[in-house]
Amino acid sequence: MSYLSQITSPTLLIDEAICRNNLQKMANKAKKHGLKLIPHFKTGQSKAIGKWAKEYGITEITVSSIKMAKYFCQDGWENIHIAFPFNPLEIETLQELTKENKISIQLVNEEVAESLNKSLTSSIEFFIEIDAGYGRTGVEATDFGTIEKILRKAKERDKLIFKGFYIHAGHSYYEKDISKIYEETRLALNMLKTKYSSEYPNLVTRIGDTPGCSTMDDFGDIDEVGPGNFVFYDITQARIGSCQKSDIAVALAAPVVDIKKDKKTILVHAGGVHLAKDVLMESDGSKNFGEIVILNENGWTIPESRSFVKSISQEHGIIQASEELLEKIKVGDLLGILPVHSCMTADCMKSYLSLDGKWVDHAESVH
Amino acid sequence: MSYLSQITSPTLLIDEAICRNNLQKMANKAKKHGLKLIPHFKTGQSKAIGKWAKEYGITEITVSSIKMAKYFCQDGWENIHIAFPFNPLEIETLQELTKENKISIQLVNEEVAESLNKSLTSSIEFFIEIDAGYGRTGVEATDFGTIEKILRKAKERDKLIFKGFYIHAGHSYYEKDISKIYEETRLALNMLKTKYSSEYPNLVTRIGDTPGCSTMDDFGDIDEVGPGNFVFYDITQARIGSCQKSDIAVALAAPVVDIKKDKKTILVHAGGVHLAKDVLMESDGSKNFGEIVILNENGWTIPESRSFVKSISQEHGIIQASEELLEKIKVGDLLGILPVHSCMTADCMKSYLSLDGKWVDHAESVH
Repeated sequence: MSYLSQITSPTLLIDEAICRNNLQKMANKAKKHGLKLIPHFKTGQSKAIGKWAKEYGITEITVSSIKMAKYFCQDGWENIHIAFPFNPLEIETLQELTKENKISIQLVNEEVAESLNKSLTSSIEFFIEIDAGYGRTGVEATDFGTIEKILRKAKERDKLIFKGFYIHAGHSYYEKDISKIYEETRLALNMLKTKYSSEYPNLVTRIGDTPGCSTMDDFGDIDEVGPGNFVFYDITQARIGSCQKSDIAVALAAPVVDIKKDKKTILVHAGGVHLAKDVLMESDGSKNFGEIVILNENGWTIPESRSFVKSISQEHGIIQASEELLEKIKVGDLLGILPVHSCMTADCMKSYLSLDGKWVDHAESVH
Repeated sequence: MSYLSQITSPTLLIDEAICRNNLQKMANKAKKHGLKLIPHFKTGQSKAIGKWAKEYGITEITVSSIKMAKYFCQDGWENIHIAFPFNPLEIETLQELTKENKISIQLVNEEVAESLNKSLTSSIEFFIEIDAGYGRTGVEATDFGTIEKILRKAKERDKLIFKGFYIHAGHSYYEKDISKIYEETRLALNMLKTKYSSEYPNLVTRIGDTPGCSTMDDFGDIDEVGPGNFVFYDITQARIGSCQKSDIAVALAAPVVDIKKDKKTILVHAGGVHLAKDVLMESDGSKNFGEIVILNENGWTIPESRSFVKSISQEHGIIQASEELLEKIKVGDLLGILPVHSCMTADCMKSYLSLDGKWVDHAESVH
């Protein structure tokens, strides 16, 4: 019996073969360039996907909150890195987790280094996060004042162990010239490594964005990569050239509840609570909240003529449908939607159905 | 001990007094105009809030999915209306729920009426949803062909009982002239009532949007109102004039992890997975993902100088901070954020902390 017969309401599908292929390709690329791959699990948030990842030699992971770190504790990881400026209100939870798990954190200012110094009873490794230039978070690469304040604080006791520098070049999602951003990132990390490696000979540098890791072929002397989205990819990544649409490993199965042939629209049960509200702009100025694929017993196929979700509200999605789609689909069918931002869609849906009809866990899944 | 001491990570706060005041005001207004108030619980998704609502005479509720209906079954409601075009894949679940609960549904086409007719073993009331003019969903008010096809299908058996017409004037969120939209909505419903009341003397008409229900004072011969957002309101509603900012009943408590005084920005742990990605535009073209309030032991206060979340990613929020805020706040503090769209924020957070430190349930809460 097909997985399709299990679905009556919006359900996030995962194609294990595509997901494994993405993991394998990135693992091969990392190996080829002598990089350690420490994937960011904020995308999948899944122990089952973690198990697949281990088969490709992955031993450490990255997460974006202490809550997520907790989910992956006791699951066989050599280290879990929390790639978010450490929140001093969570020191107690951190100490609890580090009793039986190796966890590393990220610092961007002296204040938090000081709080940790005062409270920590056992040692913990930390990265200094460097602002990749788009001003989201991190210390500017040339702000040696702040970098040295953090390092001095750490040296006051033996609890904070400096591991290296981390950059998430998140603006690679928005700008067209990924190679230029990457060149800057690589140079910044190289400069910092050169400057601090005499004092910290073991320091490592890590970058953490999917577009760069997917498309670049010169990583200079960078030691580690921590991309996240690549495990699923999505239509944003396809548009900027990180992947093909056929590399996208998740699709939302959405029930068709109404069709307006005159307006060429299809109403599906798939709204902001399922897809999230990330959006791409079409060349004609219309919005795109996800692209339509045709579901079948083995997964999905990408139709020749493109149809996409042109508007969403909390539970509604309206598809601007091609003639091909309108001819094929009727009320009561299921359609697949490739997400604009798979990390956010996965976080909304909180579980996955595999193509062999089994539930795959998510950090907050109900199945 | 203050509720604040319980918070170490992003937490959605609810001010029960404000929420009750919103419920009471809407209940009073409905009473004054002879309207039955059947609030849309997609906003709060909470049995505890349902209990408060009952104290103001509310006996029936609206929901937006069968999953949500299920959550509120066996909780003392005289009827639960699913205000979403019925999904024929869910007939079995519907029949299961209607064994012990009174549930009504919404139809927009003949196909689903036919599927239901074939399968239903007990009777169920339905509304025909009318497109309020913004083309999201529903039958156009003058599309008598479709209306009559649905009614004819229903008459073929005794299982589908026509209850009336429902309009959700969702475009009242986007357009400036709420009163004009309301006038059109009222006229459309009046026309349909006049046309069909000789055959269906008990038919009712219902409207379901917060801006209209909050601001209008002439409801004509409309019988029922089903607003949802009013129970919390948010800064979108404040901007279009449905409420004051002091009427907003929920705020996200967000830990401050970094401050860049030179850039006047504050980094908080509050991203798209907490607030959702709904956005308002500022007059200078910048984006606003939520407005800052100052938390205290009794709840929150709105500062004189406005600060707002100018950008978000999955877990990060960057606040464009006023001088007043920069002087007051340090790393390790908590800030409050009034959401742009409270329904979506509540759906992301899936639980609430009351100001007396108790967890309030949400349909998918973990507490």
